[in-house]
Amino acid sequence: MDFKKYIEDIKDFPEEGIIFRDVTPLLKDKEAYKESIDTFAKWIDGLGVQVDVVAGPEARGFLFGCPVAYKVNAGFVPVRKPGKLPRETVSASYDLEYGKNEVHIHADSIKPGENVVIIDDLLATGGTVEATIQLVEQLGGKVVGIAFLIELEALKGREKLKDYNVYSVLTY
Amino acid sequence: MDFKKYIEDIKDFPEEGIIFRDVTPLLKDKEAYKESIDTFAKWIDGLGVQVDVVAGPEARGFLFGCPVAYKVNAGFVPVRKPGKLPRETVSASYDLEYGKNEVHIHADSIKPGENVVIIDDLLATGGTVEATIQLVEQLGGKVVGIAFLIELEALKGREKLKDYNVYSVLTY
Repeated sequence: MDFKKYIEDIKDFPEEGIIFRDVTPLLKDKEAYKESIDTFAKWIDGLGVQVDVVAGPEARGFLFGCPVAYKVNAGFVPVRKPGKLPRETVSASYDLEYGKNEVHIHADSIKPGENVVIIDDLLATGGTVEATIQLVEQLGGKVVGIAFLIELEALKGREKLKDYNVYSVLTY
Repeated sequence: MDFKKYIEDIKDFPEEGIIFRDVTPLLKDKEAYKESIDTFAKWIDGLGVQVDVVAGPEARGFLFGCPVAYKVNAGFVPVRKPGKLPRETVSASYDLEYGKNEVHIHADSIKPGENVVIIDDLLATGGTVEATIQLVEQLGGKVVGIAFLIELEALKGREKLKDYNVYSVLTY
């Protein structure tokens, strides 16, 4: 399926000079959404390991990570912004152009030795996913794969992920 | 399945006097998560109409709404906070104890006559879901059902939803 037909390119959002890749038309099309989830799941099946957990950063990582977890029969661990998770968390921060962002997961959410796949909608510079890897590994989880709906190749996020098995459904 | 075993009750979060119902242990348990999604889907099948769209408020509505959309073969429309959706939106606001919240959906996300099910994690006072109904109906969609993982009966949110078919997997 030509998924790019269902991605809307929005100039200068959220700020000037950025082309935002809007996935909402894909989500709305039941055939395209279903096939995108099945594409992730097929890649996960091909990893040849039992995946225990899908982890996804809020909020757009939930859009793909949750149905993939359902499909491959794994649990889902939400990676959240500060102040959202009610129990003890571990956190990691990453640099933005101006300032820093911080992501959290519950400290008991991943057990040592569990196989984890990280899913997000978009790989740009890779800051969010790098911080997410840190969280999973800090808890003793094994990152067996990382998958994105969209990879923006020009931003070279993949260079930060050299030690991992990385997949993207679509590249720009 | 006794889903309550997988809900953690957190006192005084996010503020004093609130008992927060933490669904993350349920998400993490692959059997419980799967069965919760299947429970939503079974209820939707019982509605006896073709559901075109599942709509869910960010971020916890995505955790259940997205896999349910996948399972029942519907599209998914994210209901988002201000500033998150890149194209033209419609919006509705609702009162909080102090101040107001606003929710948005893309103006082209629902076509007149489409059958919509709204899914969220929790029904408390019903402000978010009432605003979401407004958005769907403003675009000409038909709200054929509204489902929650958890309903806090003491807060009487259901009274705001008298004209609708409402379901909750769990009640407190």
